Amino acid sequence: MGIALAEAALDSGHEVVVISGPVSLKYPPNAELFEVVSTEDLLHMCERVFPACDGIIGAAAPCDYRPEQISARKLQKNGEPLFIKLVETPDVIATLGASRLAHQWLVGFALETENHKNRAFDKLRSKKCDLMVLNGPAAMNSLHNSVDIVDHTGNVVASHTGAKNVVARGIVLEINRRLIHNSTPTHATRAC
Amino acid sequence: MGIALAEAALDSGHEVVVISGPVSLKYPPNAELFEVVSTEDLLHMCERVFPACDGIIGAAAPCDYRPEQISARKLQKNGEPLFIKLVETPDVIATLGASRLAHQWLVGFALETENHKNRAFDKLRSKKCDLMVLNGPAAMNSLHNSVDIVDHTGNVVASHTGAKNVVARGIVLEINRRLIHNSTPTHATRAC
Repeated sequence: MGIALAEAALDSGHEVVVISGPVSLKYPPNAELFEVVSTEDLLHMCERVFPACDGIIGAAAPCDYRPEQISARKLQKNGEPLFIKLVETPDVIATLGASRLAHQWLVGFALETENHKNRAFDKLRSKKCDLMVLNGPAAMNSLHNSVDIVDHTGNVVASHTGAKNVVARGIVLEINRRLIHNSTPTHATRAC
Repeated sequence: MGIALAEAALDSGHEVVVISGPVSLKYPPNAELFEVVSTEDLLHMCERVFPACDGIIGAAAPCDYRPEQISARKLQKNGEPLFIKLVETPDVIATLGASRLAHQWLVGFALETENHKNRAFDKLRSKKCDLMVLNGPAAMNSLHNSVDIVDHTGNVVASHTGAKNVVARGIVLEINRRLIHNSTPTHATRAC
């Protein structure tokens, strides 16, 4: 989905910066690419890059939790269960939302398995996003996606289903229409 | 490493069956490929395929543990740590070793971070392997590997360092020399 969004934003005249975890696919070469591994790395890179951007599309699905301890050596099986303590990672979009400048726009992604629209709207408000793109687990490792776009009123303002590049064009179209108010498309918008 | 071993075994005249988890790389088309996901699936497929094979190279690194419970819905962050209970998965090579036929050979892989040779030899004995290939975590996601091959005496009988296809040829050479006693190479040996 990140690749499709980068392509759609480039095609629409935006300048694009991608911050990505390790993936086996290639981003468009005319996007600027920063590679990260952990959720903490993702946040730090976003905090570095976002001040120079006009908006962000948060399509990454970073880990919500990390192990509290990481062993330097391989754990040997001993016949007993193993208990892993996981602690929450920082919320990248909420952190960026809390410090956003007046002219900056935020589009979040919510992947939900139940109470979809209520949760998406809750996330939009708590993370201070302008739009929330709601999708389900069927989007993962698939060439297709089906999304509802929720705005600040809590209403679904657009829905797109199909190949991810088609859905991405639909999302970028809504961003251009609803969030970008300058009259000329020459103003560079960077979508992270 | 599995791809390099499949290629080396094919080049050496073996008939090759590959049982693989999800990978982003391609196995040689003239190997027969069975795809699995979990460690349990891997074991079941090996138990189905191994009786018709002369030997097995256990180069896969299946998960040693699985979560005891899998949630049908997404877990929401609640500000608290999360404790995951993991239970041991079956040991695939040890299970096959326990039921091996007299003419069948087993080559295990041990990835160790400490007490390397003692642990490799312990694994060779407990899993009833003929040879144990010892490597380290640097082998993961790398085009290179460095291995020691331990035999039933506990001694390192060969060491190979370099590109994985070179190391794989070295491993197949040791198998051909030490474990395959028929005089003609036309006898089909399937390495899983």
